Amino acid sequence: MQSQETTPDEYFTSTTPPANLKAIAGKVQTFIDLNQKKNKKIVLITSVPLENQTVRFLDNFSAGTRGATSAEHFIEAGYAVIFLHRQYSLEPYTRHYTHSTNCFLDLLEVDNNDIKVTKDHKDELRAIIEKYNRAKNESLLLKINFTTVSEYLFLLKEFTLLLDQVKDMAVEHKIQSSGGGLSLVLDQVPKIIKPLVKEWAPSAFTVSFKLETDSTLLVSKSKSALEKYGHQIVIGNMLHTRKHVVWFIGREFEKEVRLTQDEIKHEVEIEKYIIAELIKLHDKWISTRAI
Amino acid sequence: MQSQETTPDEYFTSTTPPANLKAIAGKVQTFIDLNQKKNKKIVLITSVPLENQTVRFLDNFSAGTRGATSAEHFIEAGYAVIFLHRQYSLEPYTRHYTHSTNCFLDLLEVDNNDIKVTKDHKDELRAIIEKYNRAKNESLLLKINFTTVSEYLFLLKEFTLLLDQVKDMAVEHKIQSSGGGLSLVLDQVPKIIKPLVKEWAPSAFTVSFKLETDSTLLVSKSKSALEKYGHQIVIGNMLHTRKHVVWFIGREFEKEVRLTQDEIKHEVEIEKYIIAELIKLHDKWISTRAI
Repeated sequence: MQSQETTPDEYFTSTTPPANLKAIAGKVQTFIDLNQKKNKKIVLITSVPLENQTVRFLDNFSAGTRGATSAEHFIEAGYAVIFLHRQYSLEPYTRHYTHSTNCFLDLLEVDNNDIKVTKDHKDELRAIIEKYNRAKNESLLLKINFTTVSEYLFLLKEFTLLLDQVKDMAVEHKIQSSGGGLSLVLDQVPKIIKPLVKEWAPSAFTVSFKLETDSTLLVSKSKSALEKYGHQIVIGNMLHTRKHVVWFIGREFEKEVRLTQDEIKHEVEIEKYIIAELIKLHDKWISTRAI
Repeated sequence: MQSQETTPDEYFTSTTPPANLKAIAGKVQTFIDLNQKKNKKIVLITSVPLENQTVRFLDNFSAGTRGATSAEHFIEAGYAVIFLHRQYSLEPYTRHYTHSTNCFLDLLEVDNNDIKVTKDHKDELRAIIEKYNRAKNESLLLKINFTTVSEYLFLLKEFTLLLDQVKDMAVEHKIQSSGGGLSLVLDQVPKIIKPLVKEWAPSAFTVSFKLETDSTLLVSKSKSALEKYGHQIVIGNMLHTRKHVVWFIGREFEKEVRLTQDEIKHEVEIEKYIIAELIKLHDKWISTRAI
């Protein structure tokens, strides 16, 4: 992948941008303006570009499960979400049914002149439809998809440049905010985080995810990633426990977020706690510009 | 990707097979037996493993659109389909709604105590549900997914070995068949077609897809692919017209299959004609072992 062979600067100067880049950036600008007017905090969530080395073992990650789940929890918590995802990855709300472990066609039954959701799935689906419709009607979710890594990198740059303006716009709109938007980077292209933080969105609160195979190295590796890339938080996780425990690693602290056995049994989504924790940290960042 | 660096033989001897390989093969064997008893012809359809070089431009292919669409048309035409696909790729029937260009949550409305499909989508969705339920109730579709290229290659080998037995079982069950199953390989790992044809499923009627950027080379390149890999048909297509025109290329013939402007306007799926043509050729293969 080019982004692994060249520096970001070289990459952007040597690669042709997607034709519709400015049009998409316009949509994002409109979305940000609209939600800033409503005093909404903005988060950009980027999903994982599917690469061979990730496909090889990151089944769920490659589907974008964590990104799609996090988007829902951010919206529940009052954020407006820009969801930059690989085309055909899992998406917020539909994720519960699109990817065939839970096929939505099995939930429907032809009943005379109607097609109805079966009794046993009605309540569960109603809750999702109501959340989905709210996000749609109140313009709280902007989904932008990419198909190529090149599209992804150009869009990420464009969006984070816009996200950096959130601060100024916030001041302009008299919001008690000086910290800028929240940028949640779930991807496997770490070197892109450096220009993102240093050049594109220095005002943003930027969080990256780090998947480790050796837990003893998680903290040290995450701390040096924070040094190297200059962002605020690394959320570390291990492949086989990533749905049950993660570690928040900042320059000055580490914190474990873990589901109880009971929560695991009841299929509580750890993203609920990850996002709650991130919002606390983002609020601190907004008021103090420090973590 | 390993399969591009080593020969298939080297690959299979140097790589550990997936743990559940035999269990999955057992499912496929059962599916084949069941449908052979019903005198069903069997087709194996394999979808595209997502690779960087394909992600870069094969947007729709990478989603498995052609594979999922072809599976539906084969079932409509009386075949039993083994659908070997990348996890989270498009799948038969659900493909119409899962991948957000046409979000199924937009089709549902909460109506008092029920959740119903909206009036304007009822007829269209009813038709799909009925086809989906028939395929499910009559066991005409077996979906097996993979997440890694290694899984894909081992499953492909295992399945085609089983597909090759279809001939003998057919004879055993007194079906007018001596030609074996149909194997539709949509993937971008051409060298795998050689052992598939020569070693794993020599009785099968094997078809590969070839995406060309230079139409003037399509026929010559396809003919040499047939020579090199020993299979029966290459279906050639060009990236930007692949949904409207394809070329069937055999050793002794070429045939164009093209949608009319009117069919394009009415969004007729070219797979309908591709599969009709393939079935004719498969029948000829079954009775004469020649194309």
